[in-house]
Amino acid sequence: MIKSRLFTPGPTDVPPEVLNEMAKPMFHHRTPRFREMFAAATAGLKQILRTDNDVLTLAASGTAGMEAAIACAVPRDKKVLVANGGKFGERWVKIAKRYGLDVDEVALEWGTALQPETVKEKLDTGAYGAVVTVHSETSTATACDLEAIGKVVAKTDALLIADCITSAGTLPLETDKWGVDIVGGGSQKALMLPPGLAFVAVSDKAWKQIDAIDAPGFYLDLKAYRKSIAKDDTPYTGAVSLVRGMKIAVDMINAIGIETVWKRTAMLAKATRAAATAMGMQVFSQQPSDSVTGLLYPAGVDDGFRKELQTKYGASIAGGQADLKGKLCRISHMGYVDPMDTIGLMAAMEYTLADCGVDVTIGAGVAEAVKVLRDWA
Amino acid sequence: MIKSRLFTPGPTDVPPEVLNEMAKPMFHHRTPRFREMFAAATAGLKQILRTDNDVLTLAASGTAGMEAAIACAVPRDKKVLVANGGKFGERWVKIAKRYGLDVDEVALEWGTALQPETVKEKLDTGAYGAVVTVHSETSTATACDLEAIGKVVAKTDALLIADCITSAGTLPLETDKWGVDIVGGGSQKALMLPPGLAFVAVSDKAWKQIDAIDAPGFYLDLKAYRKSIAKDDTPYTGAVSLVRGMKIAVDMINAIGIETVWKRTAMLAKATRAAATAMGMQVFSQQPSDSVTGLLYPAGVDDGFRKELQTKYGASIAGGQADLKGKLCRISHMGYVDPMDTIGLMAAMEYTLADCGVDVTIGAGVAEAVKVLRDWA
Repeated sequence: MIKSRLFTPGPTDVPPEVLNEMAKPMFHHRTPRFREMFAAATAGLKQILRTDNDVLTLAASGTAGMEAAIACAVPRDKKVLVANGGKFGERWVKIAKRYGLDVDEVALEWGTALQPETVKEKLDTGAYGAVVTVHSETSTATACDLEAIGKVVAKTDALLIADCITSAGTLPLETDKWGVDIVGGGSQKALMLPPGLAFVAVSDKAWKQIDAIDAPGFYLDLKAYRKSIAKDDTPYTGAVSLVRGMKIAVDMINAIGIETVWKRTAMLAKATRAAATAMGMQVFSQQPSDSVTGLLYPAGVDDGFRKELQTKYGASIAGGQADLKGKLCRISHMGYVDPMDTIGLMAAMEYTLADCGVDVTIGAGVAEAVKVLRDWA
Repeated sequence: MIKSRLFTPGPTDVPPEVLNEMAKPMFHHRTPRFREMFAAATAGLKQILRTDNDVLTLAASGTAGMEAAIACAVPRDKKVLVANGGKFGERWVKIAKRYGLDVDEVALEWGTALQPETVKEKLDTGAYGAVVTVHSETSTATACDLEAIGKVVAKTDALLIADCITSAGTLPLETDKWGVDIVGGGSQKALMLPPGLAFVAVSDKAWKQIDAIDAPGFYLDLKAYRKSIAKDDTPYTGAVSLVRGMKIAVDMINAIGIETVWKRTAMLAKATRAAATAMGMQVFSQQPSDSVTGLLYPAGVDDGFRKELQTKYGASIAGGQADLKGKLCRISHMGYVDPMDTIGLMAAMEYTLADCGVDVTIGAGVAEAVKVLRDWA
């Protein structure tokens, strides 16, 4: 009888329209029907990513898309700047090293983001062929100023490779205008799909670099996907059901417009921060992302908080990772979550904090969220 | 992108577990498999209805179950007392008259319920063979004291036939202990199923009357259902998918226990009344039902309120009927609805009232609901 609600930063809840579409009978991927569907889904995704660049879809998780980008596009004769401000930045450093690239790791204090000034300073040396950054670092709920970083990188020969897995479709992202050469995305976040698809948007500037490099892998060779996408196809077996769902999900997003989604996500994040602050929780990040909010537990509260929230109220939120384990909880604002869910969650959090012995005024934090969300619709 | 939520007093939202079960492939109803499933579902329903009486399931809507009860069980040589305090009471009067019964209609002011004293006074004349009452009159969101009425009727030869369509599984209902001879129920309310099944619980006292009457119909002849249920079967084609869903739904309810459901429903109703009162809305009923709350719009607000609530927030609530059309809205607390939904709805109602020009303090009504629901889980 307990209703399940995902506030985890991926997977997120999938709309019934998408689930129902995905439950329809299988059909073959080497057919005009698949290609038409895939072309329409890709066109819709381009609208969301604000790009005319090629957008490639891999049957894989978001990590694979980022690995493909790093492996295929980072010039071998120059350094690659990799920002590491959390679990995902750390992963891109690992991948770049695994491919033997000349990695300059910018180690950031958790909760802070790569600064455009740092990028400028480094790139001014002329020693860098690419910059890899996480737009919204999910582990610390921190966003960088990708627009400003894009402006810096665009003036150079270097490529900007951005992990937009938890920002695409949720934070403002102007791929072409900001000069983001490679955008990596995943299906299970703001795109309201199950996990299983990685998206890679590739600029002409990036293709030039990619063409100059012998791809070190096969399945993750972006050139194979470029060749197929020109025929609205996939090089290997297309994920038929996921692409079916993708078509529905991108249509849902584009029907209300991505700007509206951006605005609404920001309001959910603002409401959560306001409510949580009123409950005595502290926003962890110094540059909070609007796609996910990281909150430090008040004194005396541990990760039992999340367990109780799930057991009693069916609400799943994420915990902290590495050093933040047991100290932090994370709440997603991506995708198919709305003010009614978020306001309800704030109430459940108040109850749970009170059960944990925190002195909260029941209803006070919720009322703050309600005020912020006044003009959501 | 707008999430749909039903707060209508039937149909109500159906849990995904039930929908998924119902989406499974069809099988034949004249099989041991069907009979086993139907037996288990019926046993679960008996637990919910607190009865050892026969519980019959008709592939029909709740109205058909009540029609069958009235047509088959009301003695022809005596009067039948029918309480009419709303649209459903009115319907049972119509049906009783259609069958040529000697109807004594107790016309109640809308928002009031049949009083046990009235029943006693009437039955003391010895002229009545049956009493028909609505336990929870959905049109006016009003509940009668069925326990007290049951005590009065049990002392006589008359039968108590209760429309429990919006009370079974949501308001406390002790079929056997209270001496309710016939309970009529429907699938699309607290039982968390789609419309399509009617339930009729029949006491031995009622069967005696039924046996003494030539059934005027065929499909609605309760004797046919009694004969079949003895073999865990249905006389006509069983509604295979609905019964599949029924098994899951009753298991979900019995897993937490019907008393818990009763308690939780009452809390949702209390929270809604508290929040709505703080928003300047008035509870319509003088004997409010906890399964559905009827609220009068404040001055200057009309049924556009409901339309905006649905368009902007995806929340469906019901309007008023007959004289209450455009003056009243009704919010269900039955079935698969929880505090998070209800608290979210209160916020959406505050926004909508404010949009309608009502002077509400955004967050204040919601905070009242949050306080009431503190100990829900």
